[in-house]
Amino acid sequence: MTGEQARLPQSQKVSRRSMLVGAAAGVVAPVAVSTLGAGSAAAQGRGKGRPGRTGETHRVTVYAEELPGGLYGYGLEPGKATVPGPVFEIWEGDTLEIELVNNTDRRLSIHPHGVNYDVASDGSPLNDSFNEPGETRTYVWSTSFQSEGPGGFWIPGSAGYWHYHDHALGSDHGTEGIAKGLYGALVVRREGDVVPDRQFTVVFNDMTINNKMAPDVPILEANLGERVEFIAIGHGNNFHTFHLHAHRWADNRTGYLQGPDDPSKVVDNRDLNPGDSFGFQVIAGDGVGPGAWMFHCHVQSHSETGMSGIFLVRNADGSMPDGAQEAIDRYLGHQGGH
Amino acid sequence: MTGEQARLPQSQKVSRRSMLVGAAAGVVAPVAVSTLGAGSAAAQGRGKGRPGRTGETHRVTVYAEELPGGLYGYGLEPGKATVPGPVFEIWEGDTLEIELVNNTDRRLSIHPHGVNYDVASDGSPLNDSFNEPGETRTYVWSTSFQSEGPGGFWIPGSAGYWHYHDHALGSDHGTEGIAKGLYGALVVRREGDVVPDRQFTVVFNDMTINNKMAPDVPILEANLGERVEFIAIGHGNNFHTFHLHAHRWADNRTGYLQGPDDPSKVVDNRDLNPGDSFGFQVIAGDGVGPGAWMFHCHVQSHSETGMSGIFLVRNADGSMPDGAQEAIDRYLGHQGGH
Amino acid sequence: MTGEQARLPQSQKVSRRSMLVGAAAGVVAPVAVSTLGAGSAAAQGRGKGRPGRTGETHRVTVYAEELPGGLYGYGLEPGKATVPGPVFEIWEGDTLEIELVNNTDRRLSIHPHGVNYDVASDGSPLNDSFNEPGETRTYVWSTSFQSEGPGGFWIPGSAGYWHYHDHALGSDHGTEGIAKGLYGALVVRREGDVVPDRQFTVVFNDMTINNKMAPDVPILEANLGERVEFIAIGHGNNFHTFHLHAHRWADNRTGYLQGPDDPSKVVDNRDLNPGDSFGFQVIAGDGVGPGAWMFHCHVQSHSETGMSGIFLVRNADGSMPDGAQEAIDRYLGHQGGH
Ligand SMILES: [Cu+2]
Ligand SMILES: [Cu+2]
Ligand SMILES: [Cu+2]
Repeated sequence: MTGEQARLPQSQKVSRRSMLVGAAAGVVAPVAVSTLGAGSAAAQGRGKGRPGRTGETHRVTVYAEELPGGLYGYGLEPGKATVPGPVFEIWEGDTLEIELVNNTDRRLSIHPHGVNYDVASDGSPLNDSFNEPGETRTYVWSTSFQSEGPGGFWIPGSAGYWHYHDHALGSDHGTEGIAKGLYGALVVRREGDVVPDRQFTVVFNDMTINNKMAPDVPILEANLGERVEFIAIGHGNNFHTFHLHAHRWADNRTGYLQGPDDPSKVVDNRDLNPGDSFGFQVIAGDGVGPGAWMFHCHVQSHSETGMSGIFLVRNADGSMPDGAQEAIDRYLGHQGGH
Repeated sequence: MTGEQARLPQSQKVSRRSMLVGAAAGVVAPVAVSTLGAGSAAAQGRGKGRPGRTGETHRVTVYAEELPGGLYGYGLEPGKATVPGPVFEIWEGDTLEIELVNNTDRRLSIHPHGVNYDVASDGSPLNDSFNEPGETRTYVWSTSFQSEGPGGFWIPGSAGYWHYHDHALGSDHGTEGIAKGLYGALVVRREGDVVPDRQFTVVFNDMTINNKMAPDVPILEANLGERVEFIAIGHGNNFHTFHLHAHRWADNRTGYLQGPDDPSKVVDNRDLNPGDSFGFQVIAGDGVGPGAWMFHCHVQSHSETGMSGIFLVRNADGSMPDGAQEAIDRYLGHQGGH
Repeated sequence: MTGEQARLPQSQKVSRRSMLVGAAAGVVAPVAVSTLGAGSAAAQGRGKGRPGRTGETHRVTVYAEELPGGLYGYGLEPGKATVPGPVFEIWEGDTLEIELVNNTDRRLSIHPHGVNYDVASDGSPLNDSFNEPGETRTYVWSTSFQSEGPGGFWIPGSAGYWHYHDHALGSDHGTEGIAKGLYGALVVRREGDVVPDRQFTVVFNDMTINNKMAPDVPILEANLGERVEFIAIGHGNNFHTFHLHAHRWADNRTGYLQGPDDPSKVVDNRDLNPGDSFGFQVIAGDGVGPGAWMFHCHVQSHSETGMSGIFLVRNADGSMPDGAQEAIDRYLGHQGGH
């Protein structure tokens, strides 16, 4: 994977810089790393069962580092760690080998959800699977296709909106590492799944969003009509509910309905508790128009104390919609009640 | 919608009056407002994809008012505000225009879940969308059919058991307005969905049910064999689990199975956290008989302190089942432990 | 059911004894009680709608007793109560008559989730349905097949991973009885469902797993390739998320996919809140190999304080995998942070 480009533009960071001069220093934006290759899933028919393609193995080096403000992060280059860490995207069937370089003076690890790994790649001190300070260690994550099982039932595959996190910094459970930013998104796509135009990782970690609180949560930006993917992850010690204004999705594997008779519940608010994750795609502003749309934890005391951000849907040509700048200014300046 | 009748009898209020003389003053029952019209969904085949009918626009005036006990409520006539507010029911494809009259001296708004609205109807101070004291403002909620999307997936429609609430009283998040009663149910039915005989809105709002605690939670009543719809909504700062004795439902869009192979989990207990909602229909007493059935939060400390009520399934002829009055008397009189 | 054998070996208890000499005294293991009979569901085609077999009635006597350490338990013989209580397994369509003998000096009851019961078998003091100290009382739990309902929708049947618990000890909600161990798993299988090789009940009850905390949570053991069923139940006053390392399942009725197009979300971490339950089967070590795999609450402060255990996947021949004993030793000895 060396030499691959980050697939998605870091639009939120650039835009935030240009618009949000009041933003805290040290704003970090996730970097998307895709191994999906040139053949877009969207261009192919939706997969049924095992696709014909063979699994590939991708290798990536990840650097764990200290960040300003007492944070820790994972990054794809030395000095480039972010919170959340990079998004890892692979095809179901593929394998990802992560060479984790520990550039900190604390023991730490990387532990994934949803994929396959043996005990040596578990990332848990229980299995002696972690990096000592300064140590480099390789973790291997493989994936399975869904397959027919007993009695006509099927055994689930690895496709899904997953995540990864430290499991060793500060305790055998990685509590300190997670609290301080060692987490990120992991997307395993099934052949036929839809690839988005933009992608955002939103982590409800204790009383923060991506270890930030309003008004410092980075603005998430897209243009009207773009296909935007949200990957939502929960961490820490509190329960949360993720709410996005004016957009909805199906509470299933993809966020889309599998067909017109898919019985899945459609939601615009979903529980997001520690260790859980989900993802979905929306057409930005579909049926509702552009504007500054809130996303926030719907636990009232949590949104009041800062678990709130803005999904800015610009006009189709990228210009600012009427009223959006005023909304952003309110977000940046407003703290009190009425 | 002016001049339309409330579709459902206010049976719980009348019955409670006749039975529960110990009930607190100021008991308020939700008023159901339906725009479904004479053609019952139940009389038609289940819809697949976009139905042939064209969307209609319905207009309703809603009055926000102060209520005794420090509460606020929405109502369909001046002086008739309730907690929860009226149930709004529309067809998927329809539009609802709500003229909100603010008869209070506080700023407030109305913000829906699940449906479409532009920034002007967002109900959020962020988008300058709220009513100043004494102000009247119109909010427009439209709906979408599910439709074929990329890669053979389908984009979800608006049908669902949703809800609405204040987003402006006391803060930019409506925390005080919600805490004091400004919330209600919003049902968007798909052509072919089943219309109930009775309908109840149950809101777990902080440590209350509909801002009441046992033994003041209104009794929910139906006759054996009636089709009863529950709309469950979560609000506030606490996590909850809704449990109904002796009845179960599917945890999907409708609460029914879509067919014999629908994989949905069947439940009689479901998480009900802030901003979340779900609905389902049961045949009252089906397979279990009439009686006083408990519904309660299953978080033990919550049920102990008052998040508990009674779903009274009367005999088919409306008479009281053996033992039910004794159960109700226990509910009304009993507070201590054993 | 008298005279029937417990279907599953008590492997966890025996194994723990042989391995875990440091384990606390009074470790109790659940006893599986099956009424499934000789004709394994796995040997039959998956049921569609109502199967041809007729419902049977099974009778079992259950003894509620005090246990050391201030606990209470249900058991199938006097002096054999356990925490959790026995697993009850029946076919959808069957009826289970439970003769509950209260060998304690406290009032108590047994209340099931998911199945049918009339008010006399409700297990709630509200319905005068409980055992006084020393009293014997029969509770009848019946089940329903799924069936076609209105508009082409289907009404859910009783099949599912359910549970039962006290509803009377200490209060009308059974709060003290549940806190002290009066709970267990109830499995209602549909014709065609898959029967496991091993079965474990994992109850997140307040800040414990089965009223134990690490390192006293019994090791759950299986051999590589065995079909292992987890039944997860939540109780008490806290919210939790159940996470199992290196294995995943579908978040639906069975944990398997109904077929290759089942849209269900695949998970390895799931909310497990009071009154909720779910179940699933995994092939032990499938795609990941044998070893000591963690299962724990993913709420960080909960795993830190003891909501953590080990799912030991032995080699296919039952021998210990490399490194597993070391991992178990770490689990037994390790308490502090790093
Ligand atoms: Cu929150
Ligand atoms: Cu509660
Ligand atoms: Cu927990």
